Amino acid sequence: MKSRAAVAFGAGQPLQIEMVDVHGPKAGEVLVRIVATGVCHTDAFTLSGADPEGIFPSILGHEGAGVVEEVGAGVTSLKPGDHVIPLYTAECKQCKFCLSGKTNLCQAVRATQGKGLMPDNTSRFSLNGQTLHHYMGTSTFSEYTVVPEIALAKIHIDAPLEKVCLLGCGITTGIGAVLNTAKVEAGSTVAVFGLGGIGLSVIQGARMANAERIIAIDVNEDKFEMAKQFGATDCINPKNFSDPIQQVIVDMTDGGVDYSFECIGNVQVMRQALECCHKGWGESIVIGVAGAGEEIATRPFQLVTGRVWKGSAFGGVKGRSQLPGYVDQYMNGEIEIDPFITHTMGLEDINKAFDLMHEGKSIRSVILF
Amino acid sequence: MKSRAAVAFGAGQPLQIEMVDVHGPKAGEVLVRIVATGVCHTDAFTLSGADPEGIFPSILGHEGAGVVEEVGAGVTSLKPGDHVIPLYTAECKQCKFCLSGKTNLCQAVRATQGKGLMPDNTSRFSLNGQTLHHYMGTSTFSEYTVVPEIALAKIHIDAPLEKVCLLGCGITTGIGAVLNTAKVEAGSTVAVFGLGGIGLSVIQGARMANAERIIAIDVNEDKFEMAKQFGATDCINPKNFSDPIQQVIVDMTDGGVDYSFECIGNVQVMRQALECCHKGWGESIVIGVAGAGEEIATRPFQLVTGRVWKGSAFGGVKGRSQLPGYVDQYMNGEIEIDPFITHTMGLEDINKAFDLMHEGKSIRSVILF
Repeated sequence: MKSRAAVAFGAGQPLQIEMVDVHGPKAGEVLVRIVATGVCHTDAFTLSGADPEGIFPSILGHEGAGVVEEVGAGVTSLKPGDHVIPLYTAECKQCKFCLSGKTNLCQAVRATQGKGLMPDNTSRFSLNGQTLHHYMGTSTFSEYTVVPEIALAKIHIDAPLEKVCLLGCGITTGIGAVLNTAKVEAGSTVAVFGLGGIGLSVIQGARMANAERIIAIDVNEDKFEMAKQFGATDCINPKNFSDPIQQVIVDMTDGGVDYSFECIGNVQVMRQALECCHKGWGESIVIGVAGAGEEIATRPFQLVTGRVWKGSAFGGVKGRSQLPGYVDQYMNGEIEIDPFITHTMGLEDINKAFDLMHEGKSIRSVILF
Repeated sequence: MKSRAAVAFGAGQPLQIEMVDVHGPKAGEVLVRIVATGVCHTDAFTLSGADPEGIFPSILGHEGAGVVEEVGAGVTSLKPGDHVIPLYTAECKQCKFCLSGKTNLCQAVRATQGKGLMPDNTSRFSLNGQTLHHYMGTSTFSEYTVVPEIALAKIHIDAPLEKVCLLGCGITTGIGAVLNTAKVEAGSTVAVFGLGGIGLSVIQGARMANAERIIAIDVNEDKFEMAKQFGATDCINPKNFSDPIQQVIVDMTDGGVDYSFECIGNVQVMRQALECCHKGWGESIVIGVAGAGEEIATRPFQLVTGRVWKGSAFGGVKGRSQLPGYVDQYMNGEIEIDPFITHTMGLEDINKAFDLMHEGKSIRSVILF
């Protein structure tokens, strides 16, 4: 079948809107009609060419929501008409990782997903006979996409897809890092570095966890108002201090924070986030994705004296088991999504969404098909 | 009063046996007659001059056991005749750290301890009128020493002091890192880097935790026999492989270990220990103390994909609350100490103990007063 899609032909090039060929779902796969998709920094990271795993030509997009159109052989958990959020972190419920009870990093389709292919090592996308690669197993910048059954979360049929698509990445990543990875306790003090969509979601998660003090850090003070709306109690700009920001935070919190979150992908900030943690118990969670080859560093004394350095991917959330609950929480008013959506546009304007992101003028643009 | 003591007059110099003056315990302090003390790498580290916090002249030693001789005003938990192990990590049970329930790093006497002084900012040691500094709040290389009440664990009166002195540092550090810091579960796979006293104690702790596989790593294969006696299931020498040791371990464990422990103080090995952990859940515990200014580094992807980097000091053990139980476990045969004691000698031979350590010929020398 034919599908409108935004195709990434090469690093640094604008996406091109094309009518691509989508080949029907094979065994264990599902054809999904994408209704809406967010445009996330990770898409921009790959499009820029900085992502060492980036593959072109491909169809980007990983923060979508849609409707099941057709299921392949052997698919039992989904049927046409079901509403779904594609998962770049699948959940097979059978692999060593899923069964460990300790991680959401299912590895069932990881290898082929990393190669831009479906589990059978082929692509469902082509254009004029040329293969187009999948991206993160989701490729939500296409009106029709094919996704493995184990990489689809079935959600409430009444959930507004143009909103809950954002639970496919950023918002869930931030909230999950607080609730699943850090397990922030009520009364805690929290520092959040970087006030983009992830950072704001961390703030939202910290408020859901009843953190007592939430310190938001960014060099762009325009972001402070939104941070406060989500629950930040203090907003600070590192440029306004002569001391290193970790020292500033240690001083303002009587020894450091209980939990910190790096939501940028800057390895220097990751160090600051660790070192602003309280001796004896402070935990720092790396969420941001650093550039290829970059390294984090600190003195081991920071760890020996009780700080913990962790990371989080998709907020530690198991997509099929937990994400439907996040959708329900949105519908119950317990999770906010709407303030994140600063722009909506059609697929034909998707490059504008990237421009707005690069100019720092958007939190999230949502593409409506 | 007079006391025989080994005095460190300066970095790199042999200790000198002197009759020093010990001034009686002030309020909240206790005079202890040391019966036996181990000689630990940390003593050697400070004596070498590499410890940036080292102070001279001083009386080193921090792995001792003895008998209470006299108590200062206000001391209620101890009386003359009690048997004790001095604690370089005090436990006041009142500070923010003790009350947190998250750490053993009591800070009540930390500041003065770091300056080589008692909590009132003075020393109880002198020689010919010259002040000698305390060391780690314990100074067990003196037959008589003065220690704050909150830095003494009262132990079973029948425990052999010439054995349980080793619970004052190394053995407890290793076992505690496994049981308290990592909380290793039965059936786990564990890697232990460095097979000195700490590493062997980690192996012992891992066996106590019913770890299924315990991989011991050292470049000195002479240490493998003892490691196996303590419970190591595999012993490997990184020099025998062309691949990086973390890759070797990942390959031999189907993806990496559940827990790893760095027991050397080498920042390169700390990285190896982290990177040999299993994706999704592996935790690495830094126990070794690195040189001044040295830093650990890794790619943040290691953390984002689920590995955790932690540290441990004194095994996370609260000295007054938990250490008496370790002594009891020794007496019940649940903790082994005797194999660690490779040499015993009088105070007059203490420099020989350092020589044996530097030559790799001892695990622990115990000094008997």
